[in-house]
Amino acid sequence: MFDKIKEIFESECFVHEPHQLYDPIEYTLHLGGKRIRPYLLMTANQMFGGDDAHVRNAAIGIEVFHNFTLLHDDLMDKSPLRRGKPTVYCKWDENTAILSGDTMFALAWHYFLKQPTPRLQQILSCFNQTAIEVCEGQQYDMNFEHSSHVTIDEYMMMIRLKTAVLLAGALKIGALYAGAPEADIDHLYQFGIHLGLAFQLQDDLLDSYGDVAELGKQTGQDIRDNKKTYLILKALQTAPDNLRSELVDLFSATPDNSDDKVARVRQIYDQLNIRHNVEIAIDEEFSKARLHLDSIHLDDDKKQPLLNLITTLSGRKK
Amino acid sequence: MFDKIKEIFESECFVHEPHQLYDPIEYTLHLGGKRIRPYLLMTANQMFGGDDAHVRNAAIGIEVFHNFTLLHDDLMDKSPLRRGKPTVYCKWDENTAILSGDTMFALAWHYFLKQPTPRLQQILSCFNQTAIEVCEGQQYDMNFEHSSHVTIDEYMMMIRLKTAVLLAGALKIGALYAGAPEADIDHLYQFGIHLGLAFQLQDDLLDSYGDVAELGKQTGQDIRDNKKTYLILKALQTAPDNLRSELVDLFSATPDNSDDKVARVRQIYDQLNIRHNVEIAIDEEFSKARLHLDSIHLDDDKKQPLLNLITTLSGRKK
Repeated sequence: MFDKIKEIFESECFVHEPHQLYDPIEYTLHLGGKRIRPYLLMTANQMFGGDDAHVRNAAIGIEVFHNFTLLHDDLMDKSPLRRGKPTVYCKWDENTAILSGDTMFALAWHYFLKQPTPRLQQILSCFNQTAIEVCEGQQYDMNFEHSSHVTIDEYMMMIRLKTAVLLAGALKIGALYAGAPEADIDHLYQFGIHLGLAFQLQDDLLDSYGDVAELGKQTGQDIRDNKKTYLILKALQTAPDNLRSELVDLFSATPDNSDDKVARVRQIYDQLNIRHNVEIAIDEEFSKARLHLDSIHLDDDKKQPLLNLITTLSGRKK
Repeated sequence: MFDKIKEIFESECFVHEPHQLYDPIEYTLHLGGKRIRPYLLMTANQMFGGDDAHVRNAAIGIEVFHNFTLLHDDLMDKSPLRRGKPTVYCKWDENTAILSGDTMFALAWHYFLKQPTPRLQQILSCFNQTAIEVCEGQQYDMNFEHSSHVTIDEYMMMIRLKTAVLLAGALKIGALYAGAPEADIDHLYQFGIHLGLAFQLQDDLLDSYGDVAELGKQTGQDIRDNKKTYLILKALQTAPDNLRSELVDLFSATPDNSDDKVARVRQIYDQLNIRHNVEIAIDEEFSKARLHLDSIHLDDDKKQPLLNLITTLSGRKK
């Protein structure tokens, strides 16, 4: 399936006039990436007996939307690199990033609207609700940067909106195209939510405990950026007073040489057994995902691709 | 009708959580404005026997979209004021303007999707095509800032995309909701295009020849900003070599005291009879709009509101 999706994106042309608007779109959509959202959409559709050809455009649409959010996020976060290449706002400029991003959002709709289906309103409403929630998630993420009191519940709500709903939405849309029953769609959606939460918690964990060689990038970046993650929030929740104060101080500073800071934060994490705590939380999310998958009224062989996905993701090192 | 639309916007609440995301949306949508796009949508629907209540949400949606484009345009142009109030990026910050804008685009879809209709795909495709064209128009506008060779044809293409298609799209969508015949819809769309072109050319003219008291703002701003308008392009096209050189020089400079520059450019415009030329171009667009309106198969009394609109706009002083 991933090969098929790769082929779809390689063969799709996003070049139009004015080229100043579409070149950055073509660049962004051909940077690569895991294409996990089109995969989920097409897999869900296949599970319920849908034809791949009937969701080709929707699969493109969901990936175009995802890349639009990355494009604007990179601008808002002032990130210089994405998938090892310069981000659009760096390679071109800020206005290009704004307007090409806006156009990508419209382009996502263009692909959805090209795909005929009797459930159009329901599919588009799901897509749009997801889009709104992703924006809300990004706003909460920005709010949390400036907040000293973020609870773990608030953090989970934020990553649900920012990351999980789009994976869940991709699955739901795929199933809607195939005409799946409502009850199954609900379980599939919840499967996607918990998969997404597990995925994000893994990202948090890998930043502190990942293998530099496997990851292909520096670890500890979240700590250097004073970014709120599950790890620091769990540490603040469970630390004794003296360590909590030290963590608060460490996460308020941006020293020139941040290696010492990263080392000290990891030492505290180890002392508080944070790695184990996060691993438990991740396993819980995967288990919940698995339970929702079990509740879907389909033969096991139909569910196999999503079961395999859990297995693959559970062991991911990057 | 305008009173009814005013009431719709006054009674609509755009406040949600997170308030950091929705406060700028609420602020933008309650800044006021002419609400010409909802007016066109609702009027077109009424002309063909549609019920106002059936297009209420679509009317909100088209205005939300328009205000999203203004919000992002103000950020890209670094404009400090909109309708006499601070723009979102000034009152809050750039990231808020980006993300609240993105959310407004999604919110526009939310309103369209709330409005049930048997022609949903056609209506949404028209809306989306319009949205893409508006982005393309904004890109051409930005391109032209850095280009020394813009033809009048290119300029007309740009204002068609940036301004006219949204007026035309609003009319078409209103007519689609009412189930109007295709041929009439095509004429109504073309009516909107020419109305929009006339409207933009009037804006260009008023900037140089408007009455300061009527406008409530300084004139000559386009000249101060070296902005490409119909006036300067026509002047460059018709000027003898020496005046063309002088205009090119004037439009390359940004002097501290720009009053002398504005005065000299106006003097050249007068010498070249530019005002008269633009008035002819405006009249031509209004005439074309009128011809398309005449071709619609409806009784004259049904067309009266749009005829009145031409009359009102023809005489506008601001």
